[in-house]
Amino acid sequence: MDLKERIRVIEGFPKEGISFKDITSLLKDKEAYRYTIDTIVDYCREKKADVIVGPEARGFVLGAPLAYALGLGFVPVRKPGKLPGETISYEYELEYGTDLLEIHKDAIKPGQRVIIADDLLATGGTAMASAKLVEKLGGQVIGFVFVMELTELDGRKVLSDYEVETLVQY
Amino acid sequence: MDLKERIRVIEGFPKEGISFKDITSLLKDKEAYRYTIDTIVDYCREKKADVIVGPEARGFVLGAPLAYALGLGFVPVRKPGKLPGETISYEYELEYGTDLLEIHKDAIKPGQRVIIADDLLATGGTAMASAKLVEKLGGQVIGFVFVMELTELDGRKVLSDYEVETLVQY
Repeated sequence: MDLKERIRVIEGFPKEGISFKDITSLLKDKEAYRYTIDTIVDYCREKKADVIVGPEARGFVLGAPLAYALGLGFVPVRKPGKLPGETISYEYELEYGTDLLEIHKDAIKPGQRVIIADDLLATGGTAMASAKLVEKLGGQVIGFVFVMELTELDGRKVLSDYEVETLVQY
Repeated sequence: MDLKERIRVIEGFPKEGISFKDITSLLKDKEAYRYTIDTIVDYCREKKADVIVGPEARGFVLGAPLAYALGLGFVPVRKPGKLPGETISYEYELEYGTDLLEIHKDAIKPGQRVIIADDLLATGGTAMASAKLVEKLGGQVIGFVFVMELTELDGRKVLSDYEVETLVQY
C-alpha cells in the first residue's frame, strides 16, 4: 500500500513555508491505519520488547495500538504537569529555546526492553528525549518506529546509536 | 479482572482535595491493558460503527487501539491550533470559564456511525463537545465508551440521549 498517498500535505502549517504532513488523513482511513499498525507490528515482533513508549500526543495514536497488538503495556511520555505521579524530566533543545518531557518514575523497570513509537521523525529531539528518559530509569531502548521521516532534518544522525524504522520518507 | 485494582489513585492532583484516578498504571500493565481494550471491543462490535472518535490526549490511548482492533479508522478531537486542516470548533463550559475543542471538517462523512472513546466520564463536558462536533458534520453518535466513571459528577445525565458504557465506577 502506498501510504504516502494517504497522508495529505498541508502548506503553511504551523507556519509559513512548512509543508505539514498530516497523518490524520491516514488514521481515519481504516485500511491504511490497519496496514500501518500491522507493518510496524511485523517489524517489532522479533525484537522481543517488553513495553512500548510513545510521546504526547500523536505518539499515542501509533504507540497505543502497537502495544495492544503486540500484547504489551504502553507508557506515555508527556509535557510537564500532565502526569499525576512522581516523574523524572528531560530538557532538550529546540530551534529557539528548550522543551521539557516527563515520564513516571515507576513507568519502566530496570532492564526492560523498550520500543519508542511516534508518527514523525524530524530533528529527532523528542525521540532522543524519550530515549534518555527510558534510560534514566534503567530501561534499554531497542528501537524506534515512526510512520514518517523528514530525511533532510537528519534525525537519523541524532539517533545513530539506535535501530530506526520508518515507513514513509520525504 | 478487577480493573479498579490496576488503576492507582493519586491524592491532590491536579489540585488539593482531588483523588485523581491514574490510568497510566493500567496502561503499562499488559494484561490489564489488553483486557480493557478487548472488553470495550466486545461491547462495540455489535454496534456496527464506521469510525472511532477520541478526544486529546488520553482518549487517544483508548480510542486508537479500539479503532485498530475493530478494523476502523480513528478521528482525533483536539485542542485549538493542533489540527492542521480546516476545522470546526465547539465551545463548552468548565467550572470556571470555557474551553474549545476542534475536529477536521472532513473527518466524518454525513451518516457515518460514530463511537466516542475516552478514559474518563466526569462531568461529561468533553464528551458532549465531541458529540456536538460529530453531529455538526452529519455523523451519528451511536455510543460512548469510557474506562472510568465518576458517578457523583453526573456525566450520564449530560449524555442521557446516548448509550454510555463504562467499565469501572467510582
